Amino acid sequence: MRQKIGILGATGMVGQRFIQLLENHPWFEVAWLAASERSGGKVYGDAVRWKLETPLPERVAALPMSAAKPDGAPKVIFAALDADIARELEPKFAAAGCAVISNSSAFRMESSIPLVIPEVNADHLALIENQNWRKRSGGYIVTNPNCSAIGLVLALKPIVERFGVEAIFVSTMQAVSGAGYPGVASLDILGNVVPFIKNEEEKMEAETLKLLGQLKGREVEPLAAKMSAHCNRVAVEDGHTESVSIKLGKKAKKDELVAAWAEFAPLAGKDLPMAPVQPVEFVTAEDRPQPRLDRMRGAGMAATVGRLRPCGLLDWKFTVLSHNTIRGAAGAAVLNAELLVSLGKLDPVAVPA
Amino acid sequence: MRQKIGILGATGMVGQRFIQLLENHPWFEVAWLAASERSGGKVYGDAVRWKLETPLPERVAALPMSAAKPDGAPKVIFAALDADIARELEPKFAAAGCAVISNSSAFRMESSIPLVIPEVNADHLALIENQNWRKRSGGYIVTNPNCSAIGLVLALKPIVERFGVEAIFVSTMQAVSGAGYPGVASLDILGNVVPFIKNEEEKMEAETLKLLGQLKGREVEPLAAKMSAHCNRVAVEDGHTESVSIKLGKKAKKDELVAAWAEFAPLAGKDLPMAPVQPVEFVTAEDRPQPRLDRMRGAGMAATVGRLRPCGLLDWKFTVLSHNTIRGAAGAAVLNAELLVSLGKLDPVAVPA
Amino acid sequence: MRQKIGILGATGMVGQRFIQLLENHPWFEVAWLAASERSGGKVYGDAVRWKLETPLPERVAALPMSAAKPDGAPKVIFAALDADIARELEPKFAAAGCAVISNSSAFRMESSIPLVIPEVNADHLALIENQNWRKRSGGYIVTNPNCSAIGLVLALKPIVERFGVEAIFVSTMQAVSGAGYPGVASLDILGNVVPFIKNEEEKMEAETLKLLGQLKGREVEPLAAKMSAHCNRVAVEDGHTESVSIKLGKKAKKDELVAAWAEFAPLAGKDLPMAPVQPVEFVTAEDRPQPRLDRMRGAGMAATVGRLRPCGLLDWKFTVLSHNTIRGAAGAAVLNAELLVSLGKLDPVAVPA
Amino acid sequence: MRQKIGILGATGMVGQRFIQLLENHPWFEVAWLAASERSGGKVYGDAVRWKLETPLPERVAALPMSAAKPDGAPKVIFAALDADIARELEPKFAAAGCAVISNSSAFRMESSIPLVIPEVNADHLALIENQNWRKRSGGYIVTNPNCSAIGLVLALKPIVERFGVEAIFVSTMQAVSGAGYPGVASLDILGNVVPFIKNEEEKMEAETLKLLGQLKGREVEPLAAKMSAHCNRVAVEDGHTESVSIKLGKKAKKDELVAAWAEFAPLAGKDLPMAPVQPVEFVTAEDRPQPRLDRMRGAGMAATVGRLRPCGLLDWKFTVLSHNTIRGAAGAAVLNAELLVSLGKLDPVAVPA
Repeated sequence: MRQKIGILGATGMVGQRFIQLLENHPWFEVAWLAASERSGGKVYGDAVRWKLETPLPERVAALPMSAAKPDGAPKVIFAALDADIARELEPKFAAAGCAVISNSSAFRMESSIPLVIPEVNADHLALIENQNWRKRSGGYIVTNPNCSAIGLVLALKPIVERFGVEAIFVSTMQAVSGAGYPGVASLDILGNVVPFIKNEEEKMEAETLKLLGQLKGREVEPLAAKMSAHCNRVAVEDGHTESVSIKLGKKAKKDELVAAWAEFAPLAGKDLPMAPVQPVEFVTAEDRPQPRLDRMRGAGMAATVGRLRPCGLLDWKFTVLSHNTIRGAAGAAVLNAELLVSLGKLDPVAVPA
Repeated sequence: MRQKIGILGATGMVGQRFIQLLENHPWFEVAWLAASERSGGKVYGDAVRWKLETPLPERVAALPMSAAKPDGAPKVIFAALDADIARELEPKFAAAGCAVISNSSAFRMESSIPLVIPEVNADHLALIENQNWRKRSGGYIVTNPNCSAIGLVLALKPIVERFGVEAIFVSTMQAVSGAGYPGVASLDILGNVVPFIKNEEEKMEAETLKLLGQLKGREVEPLAAKMSAHCNRVAVEDGHTESVSIKLGKKAKKDELVAAWAEFAPLAGKDLPMAPVQPVEFVTAEDRPQPRLDRMRGAGMAATVGRLRPCGLLDWKFTVLSHNTIRGAAGAAVLNAELLVSLGKLDPVAVPA
Repeated sequence: MRQKIGILGATGMVGQRFIQLLENHPWFEVAWLAASERSGGKVYGDAVRWKLETPLPERVAALPMSAAKPDGAPKVIFAALDADIARELEPKFAAAGCAVISNSSAFRMESSIPLVIPEVNADHLALIENQNWRKRSGGYIVTNPNCSAIGLVLALKPIVERFGVEAIFVSTMQAVSGAGYPGVASLDILGNVVPFIKNEEEKMEAETLKLLGQLKGREVEPLAAKMSAHCNRVAVEDGHTESVSIKLGKKAKKDELVAAWAEFAPLAGKDLPMAPVQPVEFVTAEDRPQPRLDRMRGAGMAATVGRLRPCGLLDWKFTVLSHNTIRGAAGAAVLNAELLVSLGKLDPVAVPA
Repeated sequence: MRQKIGILGATGMVGQRFIQLLENHPWFEVAWLAASERSGGKVYGDAVRWKLETPLPERVAALPMSAAKPDGAPKVIFAALDADIARELEPKFAAAGCAVISNSSAFRMESSIPLVIPEVNADHLALIENQNWRKRSGGYIVTNPNCSAIGLVLALKPIVERFGVEAIFVSTMQAVSGAGYPGVASLDILGNVVPFIKNEEEKMEAETLKLLGQLKGREVEPLAAKMSAHCNRVAVEDGHTESVSIKLGKKAKKDELVAAWAEFAPLAGKDLPMAPVQPVEFVTAEDRPQPRLDRMRGAGMAATVGRLRPCGLLDWKFTVLSHNTIRGAAGAAVLNAELLVSLGKLDPVAVPA
């Protein structure tokens, strides 16, 4: 008996990844799909332009598209909506008692909304109890971060824990799938780099510090580090590559940093199906990580770190890579949902006493 | 009557650019070509795999390939050799009385070898008078910087002059033509990023500080700034894009930085044919510069700067772009030669008294 | 005194090419620009997302966008409109006395509308005298072919003239710029081929036979050849490459075919500014033509043919390449206009007696 | 107890695919690896530049590289050698009693060497009994076709069987992985098409007709069809796309062709691990097959056909796609080996009485 779940924004790139990742999931079953009004009256197979390399599951292709309203929807909703639509729709589902596991940026920085990576700040989930929806109907909203923040934060977390991080410099080379479909025009990216992604640097900086911050009472106190992000789009289908420099709170040797990554296994023993055995993989080849070769480590859920070397400006520099639509979007949300199950907050969604 | 010049390494990517740029040059005429022994006995048109978008000039195609020896070579030599071959051959030509205008990295960091961008540090050319070759035969070696350093240094020079620069962070996204031909394998770069270019970060850091340094007696004192470079290869044919953050010596407003770039015209009035009217072009569109759209500004000789905005870590951040095989290689050498002509050091090569 | 011209659809990819090609044109001056209603009230520089490698001319950037109505428009109009909009707007301009030089597919196959490549079928221009607009106001519509047909037809015309062509097989690999902007999504073409372009095969087959046909009275009798086209989209910015096999009317040797191309110069002596000296260039290198290396031959107006070899099924096979937005679109229309000038049908637009 | 196998050419792209595909194979175990002399004395993990998206299996990484000699090699050898090396080495292994399952072109067209696709012409394997190696030592050579022929032949076989095929026209768009590593230079293929692959058209034409031919006594009589191939390289990592037109022996309707493909299951019931359930998948979407989306059908072993429509020149035209390094190389050889096992010719290699 798998928990029936719904997907808001099911026809987009992240929606498609949800369907791909949830096919054969041991705990969840895709049972309800909604997208824009254009999809009304169709089955999913006719509403979607499927763009993934594995075939659309036949069972899901036959599911009817529902209106994007809570009536009749399951109590667990994965949301893959544009921010402005999310801002309107997600509260309606939370108010109706749904657990909304959102990939949208709309509410990530709200003080009562947890922004969570299970390996990094699972304790922030406590914030859901502050949400009025939760108190009234049992529903709530939980978010995962932007696709560019998530690999970086996975790489930084074990360093923050052991040595502290005081300054972070990052320059990204982001894949086109991060912009959805049709997203980036081919004339803009073939043989080209676009050194701008709207609002991305602001999101990346704010979310990184919130994720690495401490839960203090009813709020998260962000990590007290200075940070600067440069965000660029490159001609890569999937996988965000990031050049990172950091200043540590206390000095560390190369081996100590590598050990921090190797030993980082905060979900060990929890048996969450989507969790990679090793969330951060360190590779020693001088020219890795590379998106085409490393994005699928940990079934797309691991961050790969390489090229660790001293930085002439801060302390250390390295490259980190992660899959932007698996670990950076749909997989992140599924792992959040699995964590909520393991904490007893999802199955069934329990109204607090 | 144009000065006859020779090209060492004429069949490579940079050698081809020399031929393209010197076709119709008012001062120089390609008269002598040499490459590896494989080319022996052929005419250039049969020895080269021409890879540029403009056709190989017929006159040059018919030139015979010469042995890579000074006998019979013109007294002005453009050199586009791999570093290890340059280390062997360039001194032979300098010793034979040739002015060797080199694009190679072999001698750039030698104390008696000027590493020059005409708009940046023309005064460093005085170093040639310290070279033993110069004293004995009149010959000398002058070098231009690595393709990744040149755009950055053009953008930094007017800032250094007006405000000082104390720290430099740069992350590059470099075109494949920088690696020559065949160079980067397509399987390594299609849909991919390679976060490593051998020795590139070291060269970029050292050369940048030497170029921005001061000539003190018989040596260049490098700029006293901290610097860190991350070098990456992306799927772009031509044009290196760089994300840059800088710390200034004294505070500056955005307008002041833009003015520094706009007013930067150190070669004004010199009428050097290859010199761009505006060496640094500042663009205001939020998503520029881009390699495909901006690399040909100033006929490939201008650096384009955009996205100037405050940096959360240092003071300001921006993106700079330049054409790596024109401004970053062959065009840089031609401009060096033009500067030498204007200083009376090339036509004819004058043995000092 | 240059003839003032207007551009309908000025902000699209073909509209931009018109502006680029007409900058410094000796006969025409861009004086009036119109696009969709979104552009209303803006100057061109604010209405357009300029995507070409050469900068937008400042004079044109400052031109106001006009409403897409004949009032106040020049009498010579280059039209770069989508077919459905062209079907509505072009007749209005023709009825108002304008010479409409159209790149659209809307009317190409109408019996009274000439579909013209100046080197191929200039005599078909006589059809404009049959147009009712022409009789009433002096206005008319002239069209150029689809970007995929034009290179093929240039290559076939000298063969048809000397040997006849009875069967044509062609498989295309077309650049993304042919689909306009934003056009092809990057997720559809990075590392991919799309073996389908809507209506392209039908247009390519019908237009090719009309272009190579004979003017018989008031109609064009298409070439009596069998033809089959496969149209594919590949990850190329500019330049359509086509694999072609043909069956001849009478046998020809390789040298005879090459001679037919080399000697093809139907516009010789006409001094049309946009006309390439050699409309079809034959190259002997075994791996050419290639879009990146050959598309700019003849300033983008020549078709390049290579790999001529016997065909196991028909008689001969070869590869042809042409620039799809210069020779295949804007340049084709400009050359049509130049031909009309040389025939006395454009300057000023003369109402027939 | 799995059969131990060896791989000749283990470090190349096809060699890597062998290792990837044989990891976890139920019948075969990679036990011996050889490559060029450069690899001597190393373990595989140090000798190879692993370029696949799945990690190199640790057990294989630790295997020592052997000299490319039959002494000590297993009796089943997968060979992924360049043709000239294959011509020298493969006979040595066959003479030493090895079953050489070759992906090389060296001997494909020899009359006593079977060129086999298991779904197409399994009966041609009888040719091995004519080989002198077989008679003397039990060893033999079996080959699979060129990567460009294999998808085409899979699509044609059911049509040949039911309707006959008299003429075949094909134009390919081939992936860069078909050229090995480093193979195609990035400067040759970024934003480009190369309309030439050395000897590819000749191989494709000859192999297609041999594969579809009839075993007559000691030779294969090739299919009596006319054929013409155009071979092109495009910027795709994996997956060859082919535009095909065919003339049938007797007329067929669209539904009949689709049925021929749908019902094509010649290996049904044989339980070969590498065999796809459906060797030819017909897709109805108007813009498919596409390499990025369809190459992994049948775990990379199915050919995908789409766009079936009438041809203006022959009878029907369509697009076929297959994975060039799985179905077109390593997977083809593994399936050949599986077929040989099922026929009792591999386990152990039996010397004929």
